[in-house]
Amino acid sequence: MPGMRTQVAIVGAGPAGLMLAHLLHLRGIESVVLESRSRDHVEHRLRAGVLEQGSVDLLCRAGVGDRLRREGLRHEGIELRFAGESHRVPMTDLTGRAITVYGQQEVVKDLIAARLAAGGSILFEAEVVRLDGLDGAEPVVHFRRDGRDEELRCDFVAGCDGFHGVSRGAVPDGVLTTYERAYPFAWLGVLAAAPPAVEELIYANHERGFALYSMRSPELSRLYLQVAPDEDIAEWPDERIWTELRARLETVPGWSLNEGPILEKSITGMRSFVVEPMRWERLFLAGDAVHIVPPTGAKGMNLALADVALLGDAFAAWYDEGRADLLDAYSATALRRVWRAQHFSWWMTSMLHRLERDDPYETKLQTSTLRYVATSEAYARSLSENYVGLPEV
Amino acid sequence: MPGMRTQVAIVGAGPAGLMLAHLLHLRGIESVVLESRSRDHVEHRLRAGVLEQGSVDLLCRAGVGDRLRREGLRHEGIELRFAGESHRVPMTDLTGRAITVYGQQEVVKDLIAARLAAGGSILFEAEVVRLDGLDGAEPVVHFRRDGRDEELRCDFVAGCDGFHGVSRGAVPDGVLTTYERAYPFAWLGVLAAAPPAVEELIYANHERGFALYSMRSPELSRLYLQVAPDEDIAEWPDERIWTELRARLETVPGWSLNEGPILEKSITGMRSFVVEPMRWERLFLAGDAVHIVPPTGAKGMNLALADVALLGDAFAAWYDEGRADLLDAYSATALRRVWRAQHFSWWMTSMLHRLERDDPYETKLQTSTLRYVATSEAYARSLSENYVGLPEV
Repeated sequence: MPGMRTQVAIVGAGPAGLMLAHLLHLRGIESVVLESRSRDHVEHRLRAGVLEQGSVDLLCRAGVGDRLRREGLRHEGIELRFAGESHRVPMTDLTGRAITVYGQQEVVKDLIAARLAAGGSILFEAEVVRLDGLDGAEPVVHFRRDGRDEELRCDFVAGCDGFHGVSRGAVPDGVLTTYERAYPFAWLGVLAAAPPAVEELIYANHERGFALYSMRSPELSRLYLQVAPDEDIAEWPDERIWTELRARLETVPGWSLNEGPILEKSITGMRSFVVEPMRWERLFLAGDAVHIVPPTGAKGMNLALADVALLGDAFAAWYDEGRADLLDAYSATALRRVWRAQHFSWWMTSMLHRLERDDPYETKLQTSTLRYVATSEAYARSLSENYVGLPEV
Repeated sequence: MPGMRTQVAIVGAGPAGLMLAHLLHLRGIESVVLESRSRDHVEHRLRAGVLEQGSVDLLCRAGVGDRLRREGLRHEGIELRFAGESHRVPMTDLTGRAITVYGQQEVVKDLIAARLAAGGSILFEAEVVRLDGLDGAEPVVHFRRDGRDEELRCDFVAGCDGFHGVSRGAVPDGVLTTYERAYPFAWLGVLAAAPPAVEELIYANHERGFALYSMRSPELSRLYLQVAPDEDIAEWPDERIWTELRARLETVPGWSLNEGPILEKSITGMRSFVVEPMRWERLFLAGDAVHIVPPTGAKGMNLALADVALLGDAFAAWYDEGRADLLDAYSATALRRVWRAQHFSWWMTSMLHRLERDDPYETKLQTSTLRYVATSEAYARSLSENYVGLPEV
């Protein structure tokens, strides 16, 4: 059958791929997004929920921030609980910026709606099987849809298909260097139909393990527990989850969490992962396809959006002015932010979690570090500027 | 033979013990210092060399800062070298405070001179063998001198006899909790008769391992190399040391270190160690007897001085006003600073050293962290306020 052609073929309809398609559209550049899952699936999978100030600004400037502005929950601080103490980090006072709580699937819904309204092409349930000719002038994306093999010819491919996607694998052996670290714990996350008991996120370092109290809306709480990496979800009936959440979070006299039906629960491993460089010939990789952070720093979606903001500018410079300099600089520029986020995510993770093996020295060090956040303006501001997002890295 | 009596028996004539004796003298409180080594030995053993602003202020206020003010080298910043880059951290601009380079043995000489001039009692080559009656009203220090057993009766004992001293061991089993961590590397330190090639300290993170360029005077360089924990000093002839120092430090074009005869060299293990509480009944522990930090943060001598500053005030409150509150608060108050220093020393150590096992992710994380020091005012100020010393912890 006759193949299609576009300027930029985008693999993956997560926040990175969809936002890139939208940014290219605003610059008059054509793209086709290929997504292996259904629209319903990508619009409802539960993922990250914290947007940095820079991500909010990017979405709003791009005209896809109306609902975000209406429904997003602006937070100006976080609470730290540790060693029986409680301390608020006033992030906005310290940095002038804030975060916004708004689920990744809501960003995805908004971007899909905007693309379709503008006549953009998103092919759902189109599974990319191979990328060819990446080192030539016209790469070809081979994909299967409705049981048929199809081709998409293009000038460039943007690989935004996540850690398990095929794009990264299209780079020849020996080109990419992988950096990674595994953590000896995972997160058990639940979505509960319970009004949040607080207005800001609570990060708790407890002897039974880390817990995070967060929310997705005025009716939905999003709660996390540190568990073993090989934890079996079947061992965690709802009542056990609530008991454990109470034990780790109800450490402040008079404070209690709100309970409600658990709508969804899952266990997520924790890893740090970076691949360098983020480009090979005409393939540009972005988001989880090339870097993973543990969720403690809430950086995953924000990094994905920052990557494609760079790519949007770089493709525009190429098509409008014939300039390759921004495409050439993409990987090195993006990696500076990636490694900043890797460090911050490791910092938050190691400060807040109980290590698998018993290490009383480590526990004391964590308490000292958390107390230092609570008492040093400089250290609290450093933590905060990473959390709300550094404008320049 | 008839025993002696004093108010506070002080075990150990290092900076902690001597400074405590001096501070007590200023408050009209009697003490006797017992030191197992000779005066010549303690006045010439090579140890730490960086005084925080607070330590300088303490020594000057106590009237033992004249030579320190004349000969100490005031530093307002440090240099970081990593990944082929070089960056100065302007500590005084960031904090309003500075450090002073002045060898620990010089502090010891000044304190011994001041004690002896004031008629103070320091018994050298007097080896404490046992502490008795610490839970009664009149503890007894048993020691040997000139082959004879002697006793010193007192109101209180201050254990300032270092990590290998006997004081800590006098506490009954089960009272103390030990927190510790070993590092998989050591420092090879040399003292060289070579004028320093720079005015400020250089901390270098190099793929061959950490190196530190420092100085003790306008004629003496003090240089350190990260080596294996079981390194044999015999494997390090002078020329190998200089070759390695050049490889790790001469990473900035046009810069070279000054060489000269190596006067002394030794290998020191790296460990973190804290014992809690720092008091049992009438025994008060201070300095290395209860806490060790890796030398990267230059905190060891400063912590010892901060401990005895608290003890000086606490004994004065006891003898002048009959108040026990400061003695009772000593351990908890001192431990806040101890753990701040533990965290800072771990921070500097883990940011700057190459780990024994090859871990490319860790190396990238270190570079990101060091670049963040170089670019974030908040993070650089946080590092600096720890390095020059926090007034309050």
